[in-house]
Amino acid sequence: MSPTRSSFIIGVDLGGTNIVVGAMPEDGSREIAFRSSPTRASEGEDSVVERMIQMIEDVIAVTMAETGAPRANFLGVGIGAPGPLDRELGIIITAPNLGWKMFPLRQRIQAATGLKTTLDNDANCATMGEAWTGAAKGAKNVIGVTIGTGIGGGIIIDGRLYHGSSDVAGEIGHMTIDSTGRRCGCGNYGCLEAYASGTAIAERAREALAGETDGVLLAMCDGQLSKVTAQMVYKAANEGDLIAVDVVRETARFLGAGIGALLNVLNPEVVVLAGGVVNAGEALFAPLKVEIRRRAFAPAVDACRIVPGMLGGSAGVVGAVAAFKAQTGTFATS
Amino acid sequence: MSPTRSSFIIGVDLGGTNIVVGAMPEDGSREIAFRSSPTRASEGEDSVVERMIQMIEDVIAVTMAETGAPRANFLGVGIGAPGPLDRELGIIITAPNLGWKMFPLRQRIQAATGLKTTLDNDANCATMGEAWTGAAKGAKNVIGVTIGTGIGGGIIIDGRLYHGSSDVAGEIGHMTIDSTGRRCGCGNYGCLEAYASGTAIAERAREALAGETDGVLLAMCDGQLSKVTAQMVYKAANEGDLIAVDVVRETARFLGAGIGALLNVLNPEVVVLAGGVVNAGEALFAPLKVEIRRRAFAPAVDACRIVPGMLGGSAGVVGAVAAFKAQTGTFATS
Repeated sequence: MSPTRSSFIIGVDLGGTNIVVGAMPEDGSREIAFRSSPTRASEGEDSVVERMIQMIEDVIAVTMAETGAPRANFLGVGIGAPGPLDRELGIIITAPNLGWKMFPLRQRIQAATGLKTTLDNDANCATMGEAWTGAAKGAKNVIGVTIGTGIGGGIIIDGRLYHGSSDVAGEIGHMTIDSTGRRCGCGNYGCLEAYASGTAIAERAREALAGETDGVLLAMCDGQLSKVTAQMVYKAANEGDLIAVDVVRETARFLGAGIGALLNVLNPEVVVLAGGVVNAGEALFAPLKVEIRRRAFAPAVDACRIVPGMLGGSAGVVGAVAAFKAQTGTFATS
Repeated sequence: MSPTRSSFIIGVDLGGTNIVVGAMPEDGSREIAFRSSPTRASEGEDSVVERMIQMIEDVIAVTMAETGAPRANFLGVGIGAPGPLDRELGIIITAPNLGWKMFPLRQRIQAATGLKTTLDNDANCATMGEAWTGAAKGAKNVIGVTIGTGIGGGIIIDGRLYHGSSDVAGEIGHMTIDSTGRRCGCGNYGCLEAYASGTAIAERAREALAGETDGVLLAMCDGQLSKVTAQMVYKAANEGDLIAVDVVRETARFLGAGIGALLNVLNPEVVVLAGGVVNAGEALFAPLKVEIRRRAFAPAVDACRIVPGMLGGSAGVVGAVAAFKAQTGTFATS
């Protein structure tokens, strides 16, 4: 342990299930003291915020101990949180998974820690993380597609997060891929999310399993269809279960329609698929690439890598640090 | 006529049907000597290029006469041309409507006129024109959707044309809106263009008219379905023809699915609809706005104006001038 002159930034990824906090030096070269703790949103806003603050202070203490840096070397806190939110005011407008409305999160964290704090959308942060130090490192034009319970997204244009005119940009899960198709939770019909989110994958698997009497996937859920998850489907597909392979291939077709459209419209260098879907591996990625090539213009396909995220559960924290840098200076991924 | 110290830029819009050329002062405050002439692509590349050069020289001569500016005050020529093209090399890679391949258009015009010349995509230029002096004047984030024979598009991010990683960006006509739907000319299935281009509108009208024995639209085409055009459909709809109204409303539903997705992904300030579709008027725009509100997130809908283009056949030339400024300096719409 030797004293350092590095400056550090704290990243916070506030999710409906977990809070992840960690520190990074300004240049993004290391992840320090990353830790995760259950959000327990049901305990109320104050309790969650208290825990966030405690985690931030823990990370600062560990980082100071590890690096010898004084507290003055901590430049601030970047938070990634579910939206819609108002970046400028630092307010979460509404976060259904947390039960929060018009919550001044930035001000609360800033007041408690005495550190400059920024707020950005969690899916944006995850994309920014992958573009800063992960699977899309150094790329200028990047689309992040995070597939978990829903489908979130982030768009990086010219090395910077693109937020759009009212901070809505990047809602990739809510592109229509079948205009008369499945009703989506958002009210629209035929959204990508209604077909290819983890929730939709599990639902389609349940439909496909109805009436079946054996198979790997059916064994995994002990024959109880209500227990089927997307993760089980990925695992069963990689073990060769025919129904699971079919459901994953169909998922690739839906994702291919959405991502193919994004290639034609935004012509990115990299599309990073992140979230639980990374575990689907080649059972998903191989047919997905075929589908995208079938649907999008060749020069757009040739210019684009389709890759799984590399940062896993750290992406949101890394991206929150990058978003802090972007909001307080002139940061870009390239 | 008094001598002027203004500098001028020539814009050229090279289309499959017409070539339009005109001059503008650097600040975009006026359109000078705009003129249109048939392309006659069948006469071959050299003949078309000769005519372009002649038109450029005519426009320069008229502008000099009108303004008293010397030839030294003409900064250059911006060309908008069908793609795919290589902006950096100034080459049209392939233009099916012209029958051109790997054609060094920029160099040919630059050599003949002695003026610095730039090349950009025609649909990009049309969008840039509307964002510089037309319906989206002053907006930072703009999507242009040009509906004619096909559906072209352009994306302006932060006041600048967004070209993507290999100059493909903005192919809005090739977003999938029905993943198992109509085959599109591009090879994909269910592209927006396959439903809502002028060609597709006429085709759907023909399908709807089959077996009909009277009505405004049927009279317009003298009962010969092969003569039906999108323009006839717009006109008949505005005169209350029930079948035409239905076809236009259905068009609004398809466009609403595509544009709604764009609002969720790119959250623009303005969407400009240009091309022949402008003539559809409220018969199209009223149901289109309803459909977009039904499909996209409220904060994205609230932030966005959906407007018809204002520049008509001049948009491409105005945008080519703006693209020249962007490629040779630091131009942005806002």
